[in-house]
Amino acid sequence: MKPAVVLLSGGLDSSTCLALARSQGFDCHALSFDYGQRQRQELAAAQAVAQTIGVASHRILNLDMRAIGGSALTSDMAVPKHRSADEIGHGIPVTYVPARNTIFLSYALGLAEVLKANDIFIGVNALDYSGYPDCRPAFIQAFQTMANLATAAGVSGQSPMTIHTPLIDMTKAQIVRTALEVGLDIDMTFSCYDPSADGEPCGACDACLLRAKGIAEAQST
Amino acid sequence: MKPAVVLLSGGLDSSTCLALARSQGFDCHALSFDYGQRQRQELAAAQAVAQTIGVASHRILNLDMRAIGGSALTSDMAVPKHRSADEIGHGIPVTYVPARNTIFLSYALGLAEVLKANDIFIGVNALDYSGYPDCRPAFIQAFQTMANLATAAGVSGQSPMTIHTPLIDMTKAQIVRTALEVGLDIDMTFSCYDPSADGEPCGACDACLLRAKGIAEAQST
Repeated sequence: MKPAVVLLSGGLDSSTCLALARSQGFDCHALSFDYGQRQRQELAAAQAVAQTIGVASHRILNLDMRAIGGSALTSDMAVPKHRSADEIGHGIPVTYVPARNTIFLSYALGLAEVLKANDIFIGVNALDYSGYPDCRPAFIQAFQTMANLATAAGVSGQSPMTIHTPLIDMTKAQIVRTALEVGLDIDMTFSCYDPSADGEPCGACDACLLRAKGIAEAQST
Repeated sequence: MKPAVVLLSGGLDSSTCLALARSQGFDCHALSFDYGQRQRQELAAAQAVAQTIGVASHRILNLDMRAIGGSALTSDMAVPKHRSADEIGHGIPVTYVPARNTIFLSYALGLAEVLKANDIFIGVNALDYSGYPDCRPAFIQAFQTMANLATAAGVSGQSPMTIHTPLIDMTKAQIVRTALEVGLDIDMTFSCYDPSADGEPCGACDACLLRAKGIAEAQST
């Protein structure tokens, strides 16, 4: 089996991405981050999902992103609630964490190089999403180009690195259907940006609204 | 004064880069990393250099890079010593830290976005260097392209990010002369990869050899 590094937040998208990579026969090394996010429940979800799907390894790295700040997810800024479908995906909301996917993919790149893996999976989605710039296909393509110049494999010209984004063009409903097809128990995943103190999803942030919409649409078709 | 983020290890090159950015009138926000490197003395040097040059801020972020490993700088692998001038710069030595500059630049990108800075400085050098892939001009160019797709500024098309590499084409002797021209006390900087327990440079790793060569050549011309 070919080794792959899979970024795993514990949310619906990244968990589906991991289940897909596994179903395609990759030996998956999951990588999660404790970056000071307010939605810490996702890390427990990531552990449960990784264990259930079956991974070769699962690392949770501590990152000092509150020292940079600039986001509602890593500071005391309020998370926007009850935004309409028209609002979500238009403009960049305050839940955007500056350079987060760039930082996460950079760690994945380092780990892939150490593990001699040529494949990195990230569950970004550019359709039913919050409008973050670092979820778009043009960003992923540019990261892949950069990655192949950054590494020893890039110098040798052998073993180019591929960034896989199997969910990037899917609607949330398609992601839910895909998750079910590959046998993921989506109740194990956790998507909320702003859970209550006892860990319950708020039901009103972009992530909760997009998730609910996807599940409703998947059930109605 | 325009704000800039400057990566600062505390070594000769990054310290010279910071002094240059300052001399060019940038309001410098220095960024250092405690990433489990064996050469921890460089962090004290970074603090002293930042304070002496005068920076708007200096952050030292904790990064979990030993969890990735794969380098003599972040593991128990031996640091190569007494390599010849022919050996240094040919092939990638075990002191290469997979994706390190990609990770460092990614944090710099996040901080730049939060500070509304459009300029990032990194003291990479592709002439008198250890042969690391992520010091080459092609890598820096690709990172800049990616950075301008990763960020909110990239989406708006306004305020593109520039990665400055003022030392990239210099010999080590030219870097030493530049440092002296901008008034940097190079004795404050610390370059060794493998210092003794009491913090003395080993005098035999690539970094020590390149530094000594640069100082000798700068003095003889």
